[in-house]
Amino acid sequence: MGQTRGVRKIHVIGIGAGDPDQLTLQAVKALRGTDVFFLLDKGEVKSDLTRLRRDILEAHLPAGSYRVVEARDPERDREAGGSAYSSAVGDWRSARAGIYERLIAEELDEDGTGAFLVWGDPALYDSTLGILEEVLERGAVAFTHDVVPGISSVSALAARHRTGLNRVARPVQITTGRRLAEGFPDGVDDVVVMLDAHQSFRRYAEEGREDMDIYWGAYIGTPDEILVSGPIAEAGPRIARLRAEARERKGWIMDTYLLRRRPGDA
Amino acid sequence: MGQTRGVRKIHVIGIGAGDPDQLTLQAVKALRGTDVFFLLDKGEVKSDLTRLRRDILEAHLPAGSYRVVEARDPERDREAGGSAYSSAVGDWRSARAGIYERLIAEELDEDGTGAFLVWGDPALYDSTLGILEEVLERGAVAFTHDVVPGISSVSALAARHRTGLNRVARPVQITTGRRLAEGFPDGVDDVVVMLDAHQSFRRYAEEGREDMDIYWGAYIGTPDEILVSGPIAEAGPRIARLRAEARERKGWIMDTYLLRRRPGDA
Repeated sequence: MGQTRGVRKIHVIGIGAGDPDQLTLQAVKALRGTDVFFLLDKGEVKSDLTRLRRDILEAHLPAGSYRVVEARDPERDREAGGSAYSSAVGDWRSARAGIYERLIAEELDEDGTGAFLVWGDPALYDSTLGILEEVLERGAVAFTHDVVPGISSVSALAARHRTGLNRVARPVQITTGRRLAEGFPDGVDDVVVMLDAHQSFRRYAEEGREDMDIYWGAYIGTPDEILVSGPIAEAGPRIARLRAEARERKGWIMDTYLLRRRPGDA
Repeated sequence: MGQTRGVRKIHVIGIGAGDPDQLTLQAVKALRGTDVFFLLDKGEVKSDLTRLRRDILEAHLPAGSYRVVEARDPERDREAGGSAYSSAVGDWRSARAGIYERLIAEELDEDGTGAFLVWGDPALYDSTLGILEEVLERGAVAFTHDVVPGISSVSALAARHRTGLNRVARPVQITTGRRLAEGFPDGVDDVVVMLDAHQSFRRYAEEGREDMDIYWGAYIGTPDEILVSGPIAEAGPRIARLRAEARERKGWIMDTYLLRRRPGDA
């Protein structure tokens, strides 16, 4: 069938929520099978995160056995709200697709293996898989790809609080701060909230809700970890204060929380 | 302050969804720090799962460095439906609490470390943490415990299908087959279904729904893995057939799926 050409291979590797020991054995094997790592940097505020990824590589791979290519992630319009939000994310994703396409085409040999390291789990609120699909649709560069699942910040949060995400035979919803700001979701009493820059949980604290608990964590699994749990009316203001202090101190924050409504008290 | 007595320690370790390489480095460390492993067996149909856990121990621990205590899990009344379901689960949990209490009190030295190995992630549809809390509340045996998060079957499913669980800025709900049988959840278009013995997805296949895709997997991460994805009307009947065949062949099945409604077509 003619000459066989090499095919570029891409691993999308979930590296856990912050604790380097949350790496799976499968992830370590995938790291060891990678020639080129693509690290996308969101600028100075996130440089700690780039450092953590480099630490992971240095801990598991012999020096000189791999190459790191850093690139600058385009800024996203974080002020857009409502339907403009999806559109802003869409534009941002397209801009990133162009960057990923160039990285893969120019920095990876035709029989080489590249990898993107994703915080948490590539399946939850991460754009890497969507961007790679867009690159494939453009058709300018071909590759195969696989996904190594990672410990999400959601799993890490629950583990640190030693609680389940769902209660017996009940559902759990994972959503965003923007969605929660529109109201507590229908049909569920357990809600995990990610990407909540505006601390939508404060509303329930201000209302003095007595039927709701919060399990919150920031920088989970790292030396900076902060955990708070308790009834929302008490814990909410404390979390808001700790969150503001930590964000000021470090320049960025990654946090997640579970809101749990006690159905009996509703 | 008087003589210090030893305190029993318990690790609740998520061991991933079936692929032994889904173990995290943190889990391997916790295994290595454990004296006694408690393996609860649900009878012959699940003996493959007990075997898989023993294989994991043998792969990571020197022979003779640990002890395994097997116990029989009481049967749960799986026929109970509706509110009887929560109650049946409650009774079953209490029966298990008695067994766990005895195991910890009798099989673990006062300064020993025990572990329970949990498939997937201890935070999702697993009763171990609830049972341990009940044992602590009974007050007959004291211990401290921590949780090592694991790759859930939900994460593993998404990874194998190379898809996200949520779409951009949208929520995802994780629920049970029983709940799905009551109707598609409000407010979400992405629903992960676990514990679905009755294949509630078939309803959407029978209705010939053209706005819904399914991403299904069984025995994910093991050599028996089966994956099917596609529009529900086509993929649904195929999944029902493959599922019945596999269950017949192996005597048990562990499967999970994501139902994804295309909002534009609704």
